[in-house]
Amino acid sequence: MSDTLFARACRREPVERTPVWIMRQAGRYLPEYRALRVNADFLTCCRTPELACEITLQPVRRLDVDAAILFSDILVPLPAMGVEVTFHPCPHLARPVRSAGDVDALRVPDAREATPFVFDAIRLLRRELSPTVPLIGFAGAPFTMATYLVEGGGSKHFEAIKGLLFSDPPTAHALLACCADTVASLLAEQVRAGAQAAMLFDTWAGLLGPADYRAFALPYVRRVFDRVADAAADLGVDVPRIYYAGNAAGWLPACRDTGATVIGLDWRMDLGPARAVLGPSLAVQGNLDPAVLLGPPDQIRQRARLVLEEAGPFGHVFNLGHGILPQTPPEHARVLVDAVREWSSRRAA
Amino acid sequence: MSDTLFARACRREPVERTPVWIMRQAGRYLPEYRALRVNADFLTCCRTPELACEITLQPVRRLDVDAAILFSDILVPLPAMGVEVTFHPCPHLARPVRSAGDVDALRVPDAREATPFVFDAIRLLRRELSPTVPLIGFAGAPFTMATYLVEGGGSKHFEAIKGLLFSDPPTAHALLACCADTVASLLAEQVRAGAQAAMLFDTWAGLLGPADYRAFALPYVRRVFDRVADAAADLGVDVPRIYYAGNAAGWLPACRDTGATVIGLDWRMDLGPARAVLGPSLAVQGNLDPAVLLGPPDQIRQRARLVLEEAGPFGHVFNLGHGILPQTPPEHARVLVDAVREWSSRRAA
Repeated sequence: MSDTLFARACRREPVERTPVWIMRQAGRYLPEYRALRVNADFLTCCRTPELACEITLQPVRRLDVDAAILFSDILVPLPAMGVEVTFHPCPHLARPVRSAGDVDALRVPDAREATPFVFDAIRLLRRELSPTVPLIGFAGAPFTMATYLVEGGGSKHFEAIKGLLFSDPPTAHALLACCADTVASLLAEQVRAGAQAAMLFDTWAGLLGPADYRAFALPYVRRVFDRVADAAADLGVDVPRIYYAGNAAGWLPACRDTGATVIGLDWRMDLGPARAVLGPSLAVQGNLDPAVLLGPPDQIRQRARLVLEEAGPFGHVFNLGHGILPQTPPEHARVLVDAVREWSSRRAA
Repeated sequence: MSDTLFARACRREPVERTPVWIMRQAGRYLPEYRALRVNADFLTCCRTPELACEITLQPVRRLDVDAAILFSDILVPLPAMGVEVTFHPCPHLARPVRSAGDVDALRVPDAREATPFVFDAIRLLRRELSPTVPLIGFAGAPFTMATYLVEGGGSKHFEAIKGLLFSDPPTAHALLACCADTVASLLAEQVRAGAQAAMLFDTWAGLLGPADYRAFALPYVRRVFDRVADAAADLGVDVPRIYYAGNAAGWLPACRDTGATVIGLDWRMDLGPARAVLGPSLAVQGNLDPAVLLGPPDQIRQRARLVLEEAGPFGHVFNLGHGILPQTPPEHARVLVDAVREWSSRRAA
């Protein structure tokens, strides 16, 4: 792993071209994924190692990307925490976590007992994947997981989670600690099972202003990444720690303190100024607007080049700024991957 | 008008305390508004000058705020553009604008003919309001209005508007020009009717990255504010131009070029660093997280003080970072207004 293009870019070492993968590269925009889903619902796919393995491999075959990411879901640990969740297709909790009593009733599961299928899938994938394609393990960041637990489903203004933060901070912190310990166990165990990078998705941290981010999100991200770093050190391997933060422009300096080695950003800010804030010790991942893939190939190529120019040649993993949209033509994803390879190779030559 | 506390703060002149008003201060969280709505639907309220006037005055009476804002809606010009919109309660367009042909069919209405009720309401309000409470006129910014026209209702990823921007830029620009001219007529005419400040709401500009903001949003904001500035110059009055940009941290420097004199920001960035970027010639408005008003009064007071400290004593109009949430207890809004007055008066003394 330590010699893959992806790993070298994450370590900010010189690379012959910029590595590229796509958030949600395994999923609904791919006809082979939709075909597989005809006979298996979403949770069954997450919980069946052979299916999760096959779905993870689909975009690697089709797109020739430089990293695979385990097909799973950030809500996979919930049942073992004591929370039932259904997907139809958006996640829905029959009983959201709202009170101190609800938080007390949560369990912090041991990941090996709670979600053995995750680690079985990783072991399968390590056998199936080419040594040049590292496998990224992932989990939801504690604040984002807490947001799902409290809101219980979609929300426009996220009043429930914010009401909890602002009205009852001790209960909010107890919930966040529980989420952090659950996620730390899950992600560290993915590394032990063979994941070659560890990524936290903090989709909802962008709901917070800078002071609230530092109070309610940052310390718990740090707690997870510390456990991941310990697991990697025990194994004697280098495991990039990737933190995807949506809507982070207002508190970007705080990302330096997350314990991540790579910061994934959305398209709302340019990578040049972002790198100036993050400093020379962090790599970046991103950040093409996923909607660009709805437009024509020429536009995709031109926009990919602009992102590469903003990011510079080293310490950059090309990606979208958010998950690929379900209506994206799969051939447009391939246009993007090819454009990134070609243009970044030419630059390096 | 030019001597009100609000106007002086907008001009960055010394003030004895920080003026305060609340976005969506007239609305659903107020029992007197809900009582009035029992017998009149939302659009009827917008289109009946006496009702719009009464609703505008309700929060001024209850909260003793330092500015009134016309009760209206950013979609009020749509029918005269040739687009039917219904509210139940969210806006819905039976026929969204998607093609070049759809854009060609749009009209740019003369605001005096299209929405005379807006200007009648303003004239009524100028008679009813105390001279110490200026009236803010408003409209939706061109990109935000275009987003509603293209999406036709709620959206999660805004694929329709972005698909248009990235697949067919000439049609997107034609649509944005049409929105800009419509809004310019509406807002300039509000100034001629007596509005003492002019505000543009760009709720959705935060969907865009920096380059797309500069291409698709900024020039049209500038076009509107130029027309507003011309109208004010013709009248020989000073009319602050307020630009509310949601999710603007990634392209904040571009806000310097909008033609606004006051930049309204959400809570996702601190006002101190924001002012450093915006420079000394612009005032700021904002930016308490509206969800803070769901918490206890002590927390509201403490948080209000933090915003005042971030912003500094001059060139700041206190507000929330987004509209007040419908479930906010009205007495909490009053706690906020009182806290801003008390603490900022003490600081000035």
